[in-house]
Amino acid sequence: MAKDVIKIGVVAPASCIDLTIANRVIALAHQLYPDNPPEIIFHPQCFMSYCHFAGDDTVRARSFLEVANDETFDVLWFACGGYGSCRLVKQILPSLTNVAHNKIYLGYSDTGSLLAGLYKYGCFGTTHGPMPTDIKRINGEIAIARVFDFLIKGDLNTLESTVLSDIPTVAFNSTILSNLIGTPFEPDLTDHILMLEEVSEHLYRIDRTLFHLTNTTSIRRVAGIKLGRCSNIPQNEPKFGKTVEEIIRYWCDNSGIAYLGSADIGHDVNNKIVPFGCWKSFKSKYIKG
Amino acid sequence: MAKDVIKIGVVAPASCIDLTIANRVIALAHQLYPDNPPEIIFHPQCFMSYCHFAGDDTVRARSFLEVANDETFDVLWFACGGYGSCRLVKQILPSLTNVAHNKIYLGYSDTGSLLAGLYKYGCFGTTHGPMPTDIKRINGEIAIARVFDFLIKGDLNTLESTVLSDIPTVAFNSTILSNLIGTPFEPDLTDHILMLEEVSEHLYRIDRTLFHLTNTTSIRRVAGIKLGRCSNIPQNEPKFGKTVEEIIRYWCDNSGIAYLGSADIGHDVNNKIVPFGCWKSFKSKYIKG
Repeated sequence: MAKDVIKIGVVAPASCIDLTIANRVIALAHQLYPDNPPEIIFHPQCFMSYCHFAGDDTVRARSFLEVANDETFDVLWFACGGYGSCRLVKQILPSLTNVAHNKIYLGYSDTGSLLAGLYKYGCFGTTHGPMPTDIKRINGEIAIARVFDFLIKGDLNTLESTVLSDIPTVAFNSTILSNLIGTPFEPDLTDHILMLEEVSEHLYRIDRTLFHLTNTTSIRRVAGIKLGRCSNIPQNEPKFGKTVEEIIRYWCDNSGIAYLGSADIGHDVNNKIVPFGCWKSFKSKYIKG
Repeated sequence: MAKDVIKIGVVAPASCIDLTIANRVIALAHQLYPDNPPEIIFHPQCFMSYCHFAGDDTVRARSFLEVANDETFDVLWFACGGYGSCRLVKQILPSLTNVAHNKIYLGYSDTGSLLAGLYKYGCFGTTHGPMPTDIKRINGEIAIARVFDFLIKGDLNTLESTVLSDIPTVAFNSTILSNLIGTPFEPDLTDHILMLEEVSEHLYRIDRTLFHLTNTTSIRRVAGIKLGRCSNIPQNEPKFGKTVEEIIRYWCDNSGIAYLGSADIGHDVNNKIVPFGCWKSFKSKYIKG
């Protein structure tokens, strides 16, 4: 990003957003960075609706590729999660050009299916962090401002603190990562610190997902696991009897994976940013602020 | 089963059941087979309760092994599903003796984690079919009678019709199988017809699970997939826009796996029986009626 102004393209690989979100995000950018506001282009596809999705698979994949393969965009920002990113990954990855490798890809939750595949295919600008839709949360501007501070200045305060070690890091929604195991889109996480977060899953489902992840050969190669916030957990009937902290400790002990404590990520405004891989290399390649 | 009377041990690797279920199942056995009722021993562990489970992991694993490694039992019957079988599989499998290989293991839903591991470890008596708890359904006696007719007479009418081909068959709850991919407990399903069923999952979750399964290298080696019933599907918001039939057809087309039509299995009284592997070998080894 040698330019003074960064250019962000927003696409929606899962659910759609409404125009209010786009307007609020753009207004906030101008308010926070009046001299050099990032140029934020919301692809019209973000506002389309087709059943569960922001347009059908072809429309969503095409809009992704239009931004990813356009060298004028510095950043591809996912508008929101929901469901649908995994449906695009097979179609998108082989169509990426070299241009796509020089870009930051930023999102979390369902979009982790694409982040995983991009990282696997050598797009090392993949990053776990807030999305435009987060502006709808109470004090949501905090999350969006964090993204701008990260992209424009590489502000270290925006980062989950583990990122500042020399160990490569990644972050995923645990259900999304579980559904990538054994597929061609599962990245090699050997020697990475793996941060996991979850939302709207019963404790028994969280337990089952962590059984899955910690019992796979591939995940056992990580340097360790940190647990982010697991929020909006529905009532378990009967009572599950263990906290999420106890659950992750159990499965790490059971599998011999190091449990490294909590991670400052989750479905909330405090969701810190986790660039994939080693921060030093990421910063030198993708952050020019 | 050279004896006239078969002996069934019931254990609960996930949730507990109440005594009424046991009494009704035993009474039905005597009513249907007054001359040679199967001897059905409900392990006391079935009625224990520890948080989410029918006893803690150690208690559940121990009761399983007591029945599995006891040569006087011809059948280990899972009392019910719920959640918890995956928590036992690592502990149980290495403790099985040779005796355990000469037994039928019968259940479905959550207990698929154990069925999978048992089949992987060479216990070829594993079978997908009704459980005692099914007696609680309207006309639940039909499901339980099917189990007796299968175990005592090897009645062909109890079987899912695909079983009668020469191709090996297996059946799983799709979420349970998805959570075994890449673990040491995932069986080799090469050249098997894989039947899947689901319950109480949103359509978007069913779609995601089928994305997962059909994109894994291991599942792509199956001879084909048949889809059982997907019942009690919660309302999708927004409307998902595809039926389960359309979803399975999409993912089979997308992955090059043969879609072989519907399977007569599911969370209901019509749930037919699917012995794992080839029926001819299964019958000659495990059914002596």
